Amino acid sequence: MRILGIDPSLRSTGYAVIEPDRGKITVHCFGHIANPASRTQPDCLLAITNTLREIITQHQPTAAALEKIIFVQSMRTAIIMGSARGAALVAVAEAGLPMEEYPAKSIKKAVTGQGAARKEQVGFMMRVLLGLTRTPQSDEGDALAIALTHARNLELASRQRNR
Amino acid sequence: MRILGIDPSLRSTGYAVIEPDRGKITVHCFGHIANPASRTQPDCLLAITNTLREIITQHQPTAAALEKIIFVQSMRTAIIMGSARGAALVAVAEAGLPMEEYPAKSIKKAVTGQGAARKEQVGFMMRVLLGLTRTPQSDEGDALAIALTHARNLELASRQRNR
Repeated sequence: MRILGIDPSLRSTGYAVIEPDRGKITVHCFGHIANPASRTQPDCLLAITNTLREIITQHQPTAAALEKIIFVQSMRTAIIMGSARGAALVAVAEAGLPMEEYPAKSIKKAVTGQGAARKEQVGFMMRVLLGLTRTPQSDEGDALAIALTHARNLELASRQRNR
Repeated sequence: MRILGIDPSLRSTGYAVIEPDRGKITVHCFGHIANPASRTQPDCLLAITNTLREIITQHQPTAAALEKIIFVQSMRTAIIMGSARGAALVAVAEAGLPMEEYPAKSIKKAVTGQGAARKEQVGFMMRVLLGLTRTPQSDEGDALAIALTHARNLELASRQRNR
């Protein structure tokens, strides 16, 4: 089981591929897709789809998990964040990966114990929990946390099935 | 100049390709991408990208125009409509087409004379103005109206440049 975590946003989509195996977790990659302000929205969206395609081809995840967009400042932001989500899901669907979405609050609670944890806390916890050599940038930290939350949920579900 | 008009939505994205030439307009195609309720959201989004890719390959538009999503009932709907927009724009960006967005109100005003025209009026006007043999379904009518609005704006801009 290899999980692709995605934190979609137009200018900086975080991604991570992790592999849980009997309590140990291997981090295959993490990073973020930086779209400069000079890039048009369609080109940003294409960069999201294409980069995720490359990540999927290279690291062969078997499932995907996204941060569920719930609270957004304005309709305009919701449309733009939704567009980034759409571009990400095109790559996920092309690869035929099953997909789950988790609200930010439940991801934060799962990895830090607090639903209201700050971004830096999530990044710090990811570094500690996953034994990373550097603290992930905030979108990267979120993508790792999303993947980790999904990994734990899948493990829990599998344990419950085997009981 | 060939224009691809797109009215993006998860379950029924309208599309049309038209070609204005000295006052006459050729309609190369129009239709809608029907995504059944049984299809997962990622698969719906992939169907949008893939169908638009096929339309672009077959009809070779040189520009794209979308209905700009402004008023939406809820954040949840905004995220879903935004996702459909993202999936559509991935196909537009892959083909390197320049893209414009127009608010529904200005499209309706451009094709019916009224910003508050009903959907059926738009479809009826498209049938009359473009000499169609059938009245387009509502998302198809919107896509034709979007393409027509963009065609007129481009013609106007070109005439102003040549003055």
